[in-house]
Amino acid sequence: MMESQLSNISHCFPANWDASQKARAQTIFFQKLALEAHRFYAGKIQIIPRAPLPDQSWLNVWYTPGVSSVSTGIRDRQELSYDLSWRGNVVAVATDSTRVLGDGNVTPPGGLGVMEGKAYLMKILGGVDAVPICLDSRNAAGEHDPDILVDALRRLAPSFGAINLEDISQPNCYHVLDSLRADCAIPVWHDDAQGTGCVTLAAVFNALKMVGKELPACRIVLNGAGASNTTIARLLMLAGADPARMVLLDSRGGLHTGRDDIAADSRHARKWELCQTTNPNRIRDLPGALSHADLLISLSRPGPGMIQPEWIRAMAPQPIVFACANPTPEIYPHEAHQAGASIVATGRGDFPNQVNNSLGFPGILKGTLLVRARQITDTMALAAARAIAAFAERQGLSPERIMPTMDDQDVFAETAAAVAAQAVADGVAQRPLTPDVVLQMARKDIAEAQRTLQLLMTSGLIPPPPDTMIQACLDATIAAVES
Amino acid sequence: MMESQLSNISHCFPANWDASQKARAQTIFFQKLALEAHRFYAGKIQIIPRAPLPDQSWLNVWYTPGVSSVSTGIRDRQELSYDLSWRGNVVAVATDSTRVLGDGNVTPPGGLGVMEGKAYLMKILGGVDAVPICLDSRNAAGEHDPDILVDALRRLAPSFGAINLEDISQPNCYHVLDSLRADCAIPVWHDDAQGTGCVTLAAVFNALKMVGKELPACRIVLNGAGASNTTIARLLMLAGADPARMVLLDSRGGLHTGRDDIAADSRHARKWELCQTTNPNRIRDLPGALSHADLLISLSRPGPGMIQPEWIRAMAPQPIVFACANPTPEIYPHEAHQAGASIVATGRGDFPNQVNNSLGFPGILKGTLLVRARQITDTMALAAARAIAAFAERQGLSPERIMPTMDDQDVFAETAAAVAAQAVADGVAQRPLTPDVVLQMARKDIAEAQRTLQLLMTSGLIPPPPDTMIQACLDATIAAVES
Repeated sequence: MMESQLSNISHCFPANWDASQKARAQTIFFQKLALEAHRFYAGKIQIIPRAPLPDQSWLNVWYTPGVSSVSTGIRDRQELSYDLSWRGNVVAVATDSTRVLGDGNVTPPGGLGVMEGKAYLMKILGGVDAVPICLDSRNAAGEHDPDILVDALRRLAPSFGAINLEDISQPNCYHVLDSLRADCAIPVWHDDAQGTGCVTLAAVFNALKMVGKELPACRIVLNGAGASNTTIARLLMLAGADPARMVLLDSRGGLHTGRDDIAADSRHARKWELCQTTNPNRIRDLPGALSHADLLISLSRPGPGMIQPEWIRAMAPQPIVFACANPTPEIYPHEAHQAGASIVATGRGDFPNQVNNSLGFPGILKGTLLVRARQITDTMALAAARAIAAFAERQGLSPERIMPTMDDQDVFAETAAAVAAQAVADGVAQRPLTPDVVLQMARKDIAEAQRTLQLLMTSGLIPPPPDTMIQACLDATIAAVES
Repeated sequence: MMESQLSNISHCFPANWDASQKARAQTIFFQKLALEAHRFYAGKIQIIPRAPLPDQSWLNVWYTPGVSSVSTGIRDRQELSYDLSWRGNVVAVATDSTRVLGDGNVTPPGGLGVMEGKAYLMKILGGVDAVPICLDSRNAAGEHDPDILVDALRRLAPSFGAINLEDISQPNCYHVLDSLRADCAIPVWHDDAQGTGCVTLAAVFNALKMVGKELPACRIVLNGAGASNTTIARLLMLAGADPARMVLLDSRGGLHTGRDDIAADSRHARKWELCQTTNPNRIRDLPGALSHADLLISLSRPGPGMIQPEWIRAMAPQPIVFACANPTPEIYPHEAHQAGASIVATGRGDFPNQVNNSLGFPGILKGTLLVRARQITDTMALAAARAIAAFAERQGLSPERIMPTMDDQDVFAETAAAVAAQAVADGVAQRPLTPDVVLQMARKDIAEAQRTLQLLMTSGLIPPPPDTMIQACLDATIAAVES
């Protein structure tokens, strides 16, 4: 059948299916295949040497007695840990697995598939080594205690060059991020917040170019007030958006100064700030907010059916709709377009305009590590967003292509260079390399990671996925959708 | 010069040097080269995919939306984490860096070189993925608190298939091991204790064969009463040694019932047990203990000069001397032989008869992981020792070859099979595979790890070490020894 190329999978579905059936089938197919393929390969990543073994006596160099000079060298000059070990290029992809993609709390080991996926992307897209760390942060009462997570990660920090926080439920995620940033000597990136924020911002920049609108004049609706959207709001304002034209909504409705439930809970301090700065008209619900809005950024619950076509029809001319819930968008792109949306983006790679933090974090962390930034500032995230948007623009924008795709490999190295330059400008780089040096180093590491994968595939050390496995998943998918 | 083959490095030293000079030069050379080579390669390990990417749409399988079925699958059946992620083959090599090889407390990141070395060996010898984890276990007063280490590792357990504890100072290491074994759902291996114990036992078995002595009749001296030697004592007794013919010594002298300092400290409960069962004559010092002894196992302080030749001359006929301190043996092999030792072993790979736990842990952990053992029992360690000894015996024993070397690749797969069989026999295997299946699986994984390394070396993705670097280290070594 497709010789393990899946890009045309929808052509394998029955020709008489409508777009909804095909979209639903794609999700079902990828999830069925994921289960089988993860089992077949026993996961997605592995550890291998980065240093050679010309003969067995090199073990005297890599291990005892030689390695003693590495131990004492680092003991006497802590920063040598970045030069003499893999620390300078390794990130902990850390979670408590309490809010994993669209699946919520999946128990600590349940996060492994996603964290391993992140590590996979980190290497092949960013040339960064990453270790999946799913921590059990439950206290004696069985509740997830953010301070347990903070403490464990703080203890782990000497082993890593940076920490990438991931899929931690609200409001714990803010406390974890703030505490670690205060305590840790290494940069801490919260990918659900800054990562999604940065990539969404890039998509906003280019979507607005397509419809000829300016950010400060736009009416913006952010549906969902989780870590991502509250950070997106902050970054949008940093980029020039007018808070008085913004409305954020959580599961109880619009955020505004009348939301006593938010004011009363100190853990929601950031949401309360947004209650005070946005939505002066105290709009209460999503249909009300969308009326005459220019831009919807929805990061709420998996759809379809979460956003009604008539709400989109009520938006301003040339509306922009980002329906980014995972694993299924709040409204399918074909429905949003039918309702009049000019530009539609989702979180999915199997639809056009993927707004996925995978476009950001590999390059951002690579740039951060290469200049050994002490932290990752909001201005570094904004620099990354501009680099990603500029890259896509240079490739040529269209309504179905406002973002780079995963095939645009060089966006990651360019992002790394932009982030590194901003780190130097912000005074947080401990190794202030020039952007050009960062670009070359990032390109080299990314190219080598991809060449390594190709080499293992062509040599058979990583065997191809069995056609029978793919066909069986396809058959099961068709049966499920038609039943 | 040597085209990066280091096995004949001693031939590059001046011909007029004596054995002591050459031995000292070897240590200096490997330590100098280690510093340069670790810097050149920026560490020793990396993360790469174990699953293919036939086209970019496979990211929909490895990441969102496909991976959702992996998250929820593991959430609903925790044991699937071993099938659907890398967890089933990944070990945390964990330390607080408080007793790293012969260098003592090297600060938390200072342990990275050794833990990374262990991860390197774990993969190429055992086909096991391993992650270096150097934890900062210091409390507010700056003291290393074993409970902090225990808690952090317990939190990490959902991410790993096993934990390999390493280089934790006494007596904390016992508390850490016991607490984790009680708390953790995954097996915990203490390589300094069980690992060294198992490999030393293998060497003892074969050394005794060479000199025609039987273990129960032997007078045994264990110099040093750290984690290794106290565990070696326990395993020796399990294997049939007579405690009344054993003497252990710590830095204050022989262990015996008169040692009130040990009796008074509850943290030393295991040492106190040995005080009560061994050394009935209350021998107080090493020369006294060695008089008429058959076997010395020394794991004390780096030498040379820690064991005097005249003490060896006073041992029983055909004495066996294991001088295993790292990075430098308590007495150099040539000196021990001059003093009459029949069999000499050290911890070093650049002398004959390396008694190094590297011969054990890769196979032991591979076997443990393959049958998903809930723990690693002492009988499993003993089974590993017997497998290692039997392997060397089949290859042919001699006074300079009582142990397999790192070149004897198949010893690791055979050890894995023996350990797995014992786990099944002990009732701790959650996936009771047959020894033959384990042997084949281990061989395959080890061969693939080595082929991967070879492929990266021959393709140039891992470049060869520069000859100039090796030559410079050699020149500096010669200058240092002759100065």
